Amino acid sequence: MTQAKYPAIRLKPKANARAIRHGSPWVYDNELVLDRRTKSLQAGTLAVLEDEGRTAMGLVAVNPGSRIVGRMLDRDPEAEIDQSWIEARLSAALDHRTRLYSAPFYRLVHAEGDRLPGVVIDRFGDVAVLQPNAAWADARKEMIADALQRVTGVSTVILNGTSRARGLEGLPEVLEVLRGAAPEGPIPVPMNGATYMADLMGGQKTGLYFDQRPNHALAARLAQGARVLDVFSHVGGFSLAMLAGGAASALAVDGSAPALELAVQGADASGVAERFATRKGDAFDTLAALAEEGEVFDVVICDPPAFAPSRKTLDPGLRAYERIARLAAPLVAEGGYLGLCSCSHAAGLDAFRAASTRGIGKAGRAGQLIHTGFAGPDHPLLPQLAETGYLKALFYRL
Amino acid sequence: MTQAKYPAIRLKPKANARAIRHGSPWVYDNELVLDRRTKSLQAGTLAVLEDEGRTAMGLVAVNPGSRIVGRMLDRDPEAEIDQSWIEARLSAALDHRTRLYSAPFYRLVHAEGDRLPGVVIDRFGDVAVLQPNAAWADARKEMIADALQRVTGVSTVILNGTSRARGLEGLPEVLEVLRGAAPEGPIPVPMNGATYMADLMGGQKTGLYFDQRPNHALAARLAQGARVLDVFSHVGGFSLAMLAGGAASALAVDGSAPALELAVQGADASGVAERFATRKGDAFDTLAALAEEGEVFDVVICDPPAFAPSRKTLDPGLRAYERIARLAAPLVAEGGYLGLCSCSHAAGLDAFRAASTRGIGKAGRAGQLIHTGFAGPDHPLLPQLAETGYLKALFYRL
Repeated sequence: MTQAKYPAIRLKPKANARAIRHGSPWVYDNELVLDRRTKSLQAGTLAVLEDEGRTAMGLVAVNPGSRIVGRMLDRDPEAEIDQSWIEARLSAALDHRTRLYSAPFYRLVHAEGDRLPGVVIDRFGDVAVLQPNAAWADARKEMIADALQRVTGVSTVILNGTSRARGLEGLPEVLEVLRGAAPEGPIPVPMNGATYMADLMGGQKTGLYFDQRPNHALAARLAQGARVLDVFSHVGGFSLAMLAGGAASALAVDGSAPALELAVQGADASGVAERFATRKGDAFDTLAALAEEGEVFDVVICDPPAFAPSRKTLDPGLRAYERIARLAAPLVAEGGYLGLCSCSHAAGLDAFRAASTRGIGKAGRAGQLIHTGFAGPDHPLLPQLAETGYLKALFYRL
Repeated sequence: MTQAKYPAIRLKPKANARAIRHGSPWVYDNELVLDRRTKSLQAGTLAVLEDEGRTAMGLVAVNPGSRIVGRMLDRDPEAEIDQSWIEARLSAALDHRTRLYSAPFYRLVHAEGDRLPGVVIDRFGDVAVLQPNAAWADARKEMIADALQRVTGVSTVILNGTSRARGLEGLPEVLEVLRGAAPEGPIPVPMNGATYMADLMGGQKTGLYFDQRPNHALAARLAQGARVLDVFSHVGGFSLAMLAGGAASALAVDGSAPALELAVQGADASGVAERFATRKGDAFDTLAALAEEGEVFDVVICDPPAFAPSRKTLDPGLRAYERIARLAAPLVAEGGYLGLCSCSHAAGLDAFRAASTRGIGKAGRAGQLIHTGFAGPDHPLLPQLAETGYLKALFYRL
């Protein structure tokens, strides 16, 4: 009976069983005996992971079509992955966030870091946005939605299946309301003294990221009385925090008109609209144009999309980061600040810092590094997956 | 005339002139043509650094007796290192700190990071503590004290020459009052809602470090209602911040009775004395004893002295960090937090995280990594000297 509860999949002798025993949550396709039976398992099936000697190591979610074939769900190979199991994980995640934040706006579940592999949940007050980016979770999205309502009391659960990660899992793109009513228009989100507007039904382009919160806070501390430039501003993450922190003026640059429109609404909601301006355009072009125009700022922040999302794109990605630094540095006043961010998995901290420092040097400037920041504490990591620490923020003083 | 202003020292053909041109501030003994004339230069002499083709690269401070023979003072080889030059550097440093902190308690000068090589200055309101840890600065300590008074208006300047770094420069140990009157007793220092007591005439043992301020702040956010253990507490850095943040109780462990006495005075000054207790003893022994006694805490912090101050001590140092993690993890309640810190130059972030994670695993626990922090923004770094980022704080949730 116990034996039959779940199918078994087996590690090859060469697989790094030790790493998995020590907390690594992923089993790659080249580590598994991929016999016909294993290959025929449906994406999202639960299976017992066995080492080469057939000793059970834990319960994994299987996706034979992904490079990550197995994701560790529970070290107990007989665990029952039912609603109460999910509720326990959500409760643990919620305890941590309520300790950290006085208002219910945060990343509630950060996938492997919260022991819910591939599951991302952001909370916006009474609304939760669920991203089931792994097959096991997609297959259990209704159960997760129920558990989410029970544990947090949110009335609306939105399923956002637009992440790139879903493609790797063979999951379709989808955006729908799973529970409750879709919010009527953008939701106001209080953070760092500002109010942001998040359009949760607009996909990635107009939602809101919580990961930069501590770096926004530092920028705000630097911005008192400052002229501020926020490049790749999205809905105004850095600029609204800096205006709330006392910046004299802020210019937000982004290629997305809907994002800038939400930034303007956020500036209104934050009571800083008079000091806020936007400029739609390509970031590289706009940086060059601002230099042409002789503009100078006390704080310049560049928070681009991932230029190096994969190892293949690392070299061109690092060159793009260098170029951003080279174009942005001339816009910074003497003694002013330049914040450079990367959300590229493939670009490690050292490589990103080297590229940024090189770009600043090529612009004929030199600087002190005053801050190295990562995503906030609502984005926990498994220590065994250092590479999931994708977000890096470097603040220079020039 | 211009040629004669300073003696010249010359790089060997093999030296990394490019790195120096790109901002590296140090010239090592094996990079220089160490002829008799160069060797005979007095420690603290100023000299023009030339590349192998005799092109001037900048003005350096020379110490033929140190591994770092040259420290870049100014890229202008004809710069005059007088009081106004020092005042300009101090003003730039002060501008940054006054932007960051509402009260005048911070590291004012962080050596190379503030372009004053080897010079460390901490400010405690009306009192500044100067550490001239390089020969050029020691020779100009009176000039620095004058500049310091002019730029900041402090009335007292204490010379603290007790750092290990002075030994490497061949400088004597000394502790004296350079300007003004010695403070009568410990100085109250407001930080993160607590009041610390800093005995500035007691040497390193009873002073105060500003570097952990942002990590103290995070610990305080986690500590609401918590039972807290602060190991290697020194004068109560983490525990007083956590008590001010609402911790139910805190136990501070340290081997130094004077440091613990200041922690008790700080608890008094912070109005949290009722919730504060101390225990004098060896940290390793005390961690083991507390486990024996069946004690459990919601937050445990270990902020030891540098176990791996040099490359030679890296392996035993990492083993000591692992041991700390192994001994501390069993004391953390389920869902509680463990903060592990390293101030070892030689132990890089990855190595320290691996050792800490291993120790936690050996204790039979597993955790999420919720925070990776460094020294605060009053400890700027030259981006070219990543290794000067000595302080690392890792917060786990177990």
